[in-house]
Amino acid sequence: MNTLLQQIDFIKEIDKLKYIQRKTRLFNSDRHENDAEHSWHLAMMVLAFAEHSNTDIDILKVLKMVLIHDIVEIDSGDVFIFDTAKNHDNTAEELKAAKRIFGMLPDAQAKELIALWLEFENGESNEAKFAKAMDRFEPILQNASNKGGTWREYQVPKEKVLDKTKPVALGSKAIWDYSLKEIETLFKTW
Amino acid sequence: MNTLLQQIDFIKEIDKLKYIQRKTRLFNSDRHENDAEHSWHLAMMVLAFAEHSNTDIDILKVLKMVLIHDIVEIDSGDVFIFDTAKNHDNTAEELKAAKRIFGMLPDAQAKELIALWLEFENGESNEAKFAKAMDRFEPILQNASNKGGTWREYQVPKEKVLDKTKPVALGSKAIWDYSLKEIETLFKTW
Repeated sequence: MNTLLQQIDFIKEIDKLKYIQRKTRLFNSDRHENDAEHSWHLAMMVLAFAEHSNTDIDILKVLKMVLIHDIVEIDSGDVFIFDTAKNHDNTAEELKAAKRIFGMLPDAQAKELIALWLEFENGESNEAKFAKAMDRFEPILQNASNKGGTWREYQVPKEKVLDKTKPVALGSKAIWDYSLKEIETLFKTW
Repeated sequence: MNTLLQQIDFIKEIDKLKYIQRKTRLFNSDRHENDAEHSWHLAMMVLAFAEHSNTDIDILKVLKMVLIHDIVEIDSGDVFIFDTAKNHDNTAEELKAAKRIFGMLPDAQAKELIALWLEFENGESNEAKFAKAMDRFEPILQNASNKGGTWREYQVPKEKVLDKTKPVALGSKAIWDYSLKEIETLFKTW
């Protein structure tokens, strides 16, 4: 029963992810997306696009990764990927957040989720590569639907967009081919 | 490539789930929850609470169920579980929605998701029972955090609350025991 109470406290705590706003906006919309909606959408993308992965992947593991990947932002906040002042990657602040929040769970679960989050951040396993590909592909689709979206809004040059989105290729060459065409077409429109 | 384009259209379409508002409100909040946030939270509950399932369950299958279970509401809208004028269960309208929306995917995927959605709605398999338990447990936690929440707001009698939430027991006796205590305590406060 003690185990259940710990898990319930964790489930209540992560409700806060619904208040973390991302820079990107919903499809054909000016409403910002929050991290909980984003995580759900990535999970659906994993289910829809899994066959396009460059390698065999453990779908359950990828789903877990995308479901939990932004939970640290409850403490550390969303960092815009084109923010040059702040490092987007696995910071000490994010690791502390992972330990605090996943640490609310019983030991074995806490360890599993911290390890999964680190594996995602490191981006080296096949599962992490595919999960990260989904995380970078969603804003490509959103910005394409919003006539340039955040890229246009913050005047991000095409080279920077390509540099930040190219990890899509590590997860799926087919999806990267599609993305490249979308980005090229989009940057011709303004 | 045609397959990928179909999948991309599906992923764009289901963005609409982020606009479907539920009656329930976030934890300790008066902000309504939307279906995408709700689906993410249920997925996290599956990961957190799986060990309390009454039976062995295929976690990947349960995750898929909770991720897709409300997508039909893009066409049919959210029906409040205590709405007596409208049938909450598997209606012709919802089935039509499932066929239209999941039908945007390539055949094999469309068939899989329609079958999964129907399995969830029927509530007979172990996976469906656990998925439904999570779906009923989330508002218990939310309403408890909101001093009665929607139950108090719509003056739902305790007997009706117990009747609508008792499917939790079919998925997890441990979670139902906890829920019963929460509901009893809560109904003493107003």
